[in-house]
Amino acid sequence: MPVTILFAARPERWVQYEAPLTEALAEAGIDAEIITGTDSPETVDYIVYAPNSDVQDFTPFTRCKAVLNLWAGVENIVGNTTLTQPLARMVDPALTQGMVEWCAGHVLRHHLGMDLHIHGQDGIWRAGIIPPLAAERVVTVLGLGELGAAVAQALAGLGFDVRGWSRRPREVAGVACFAGADGLDAALTGAGIVVLLLPLTPATENVLNADRMALLAPGAAIVNPGRGPLIDDEALIAALDSGQLSHATLDVFRTEPLPPEHPFWAHPKVTVTPHIASETRASTASCVIAENVRRGEAGEPFLYLVARDAGY
Amino acid sequence: MPVTILFAARPERWVQYEAPLTEALAEAGIDAEIITGTDSPETVDYIVYAPNSDVQDFTPFTRCKAVLNLWAGVENIVGNTTLTQPLARMVDPALTQGMVEWCAGHVLRHHLGMDLHIHGQDGIWRAGIIPPLAAERVVTVLGLGELGAAVAQALAGLGFDVRGWSRRPREVAGVACFAGADGLDAALTGAGIVVLLLPLTPATENVLNADRMALLAPGAAIVNPGRGPLIDDEALIAALDSGQLSHATLDVFRTEPLPPEHPFWAHPKVTVTPHIASETRASTASCVIAENVRRGEAGEPFLYLVARDAGY
Repeated sequence: MPVTILFAARPERWVQYEAPLTEALAEAGIDAEIITGTDSPETVDYIVYAPNSDVQDFTPFTRCKAVLNLWAGVENIVGNTTLTQPLARMVDPALTQGMVEWCAGHVLRHHLGMDLHIHGQDGIWRAGIIPPLAAERVVTVLGLGELGAAVAQALAGLGFDVRGWSRRPREVAGVACFAGADGLDAALTGAGIVVLLLPLTPATENVLNADRMALLAPGAAIVNPGRGPLIDDEALIAALDSGQLSHATLDVFRTEPLPPEHPFWAHPKVTVTPHIASETRASTASCVIAENVRRGEAGEPFLYLVARDAGY
Repeated sequence: MPVTILFAARPERWVQYEAPLTEALAEAGIDAEIITGTDSPETVDYIVYAPNSDVQDFTPFTRCKAVLNLWAGVENIVGNTTLTQPLARMVDPALTQGMVEWCAGHVLRHHLGMDLHIHGQDGIWRAGIIPPLAAERVVTVLGLGELGAAVAQALAGLGFDVRGWSRRPREVAGVACFAGADGLDAALTGAGIVVLLLPLTPATENVLNADRMALLAPGAAIVNPGRGPLIDDEALIAALDSGQLSHATLDVFRTEPLPPEHPFWAHPKVTVTPHIASETRASTASCVIAENVRRGEAGEPFLYLVARDAGY
């Protein structure tokens, strides 16, 4: 009997995933029937899930062995009390690689002071402003999960003086790793560029607040491809206006799309990017989903299970 | 008797070099007297040289064992027929590292399409434009000397599909290497980003001409931190205007500073940067100079000798 997989996401997502997911399941040797809706929730074996889908009550899915989230962030599902099944995050190698490229690019942009020249095409030869070498620039990456660890390692490979921070102690080659509440202040003190790649949980909301911004090197830059609420927005604007921070490149916001009247758009020291830092790609993500279905059918442990109590 | 070293460069350079060069020579165990001018050229053992210095006739320096160029490029000295002494280029590890950072930053900038967002802070949420992964982007580095090889390797480390080209065959780990006249067209065909790091010689002038620009992927970007005359400027503007090229970031020019009325400044698809891609740094360069003086005194071969016939 085929495995029944409910693809619970918006129709435009199904257009992207139908072919690669079908192929990935076949390649994993799984006899699967993929459905995009059902009147018989009790017959569903797995749910491939986007939090903005119609499925919000998991109670009727009595046979479901796992909910496989399409995205890396789980903050919009982890608090759903009807969800009693195992929940797996997406860890897409292409998403990770795209994030590495975006973060490396924007860190180098701030490190090199590129904007002065991108904006300054006015015939004035602004010579003589040579940045320090990367080895002289402390970059602190907050969050050392799949994404943060990969970004920290790539930045170390480019020669930056990289620090990483995570709630629980981790080790990343070439990166000075800090952990816990005390470690956070130490990791931030004197940093010239901060990259935020933490999961959004009650403990990480506003983690970059006024007090912590004051610990950074004067003129530090912020790069946030993580989640909007990790930053105290008002404190950020105050620190930019005072000169404590020189720039913030923000890809994520409390409200997305960021409303046109939001002060970030008009602020000369803020670059808004429209949640493009990286994207899950259907071809590689489908392989991750297929592998987790294969594991479920073989009785093996699922990959990338969410620790429900920690929230990520 | 101390070794006499003539520091032949502009006075502002001496301000930068006096302390580190004195220290580097002492650390290399050399009893040296550094002078910044002389009435007795026949007493000079080594010349530390900038091509814009007062010394243009090397004939009177009858005892001079080597001319140690302060910079990587030697096109303004290699043709000096009065120079019969060995000539060494500067190969400064800090210059190389700075070049790697600048090139990686601008290649990522073009790869990611950053300018759309840096310029587009107008409240319009331009979502949905996700670049391909670096593995799907061909970056061709012209020149595989100290700088080109280091840049090509760093770009490969970031995941790009990197090709390199040099006059004579070279091997660089992780880079598809091409050589010679035929190899040049093959290296450029289908490239999405081209980085120019060739020495300037009669053979490399206008190496990137209209025919070769036509070989690139439609919408390709050019990054030139090498030398201005490597590019046919008129062909470049034509290719930008036709859309064959999407952008050029130029750090070097036939005339520097680039005159304010030059069309590059006003062209929307050109970013002019003021010869800042990388700079020789006095502390590290002084160590290279001291090592070459040590070698000269010990009768060992000099590092980084220029092949006068090849011009670099």
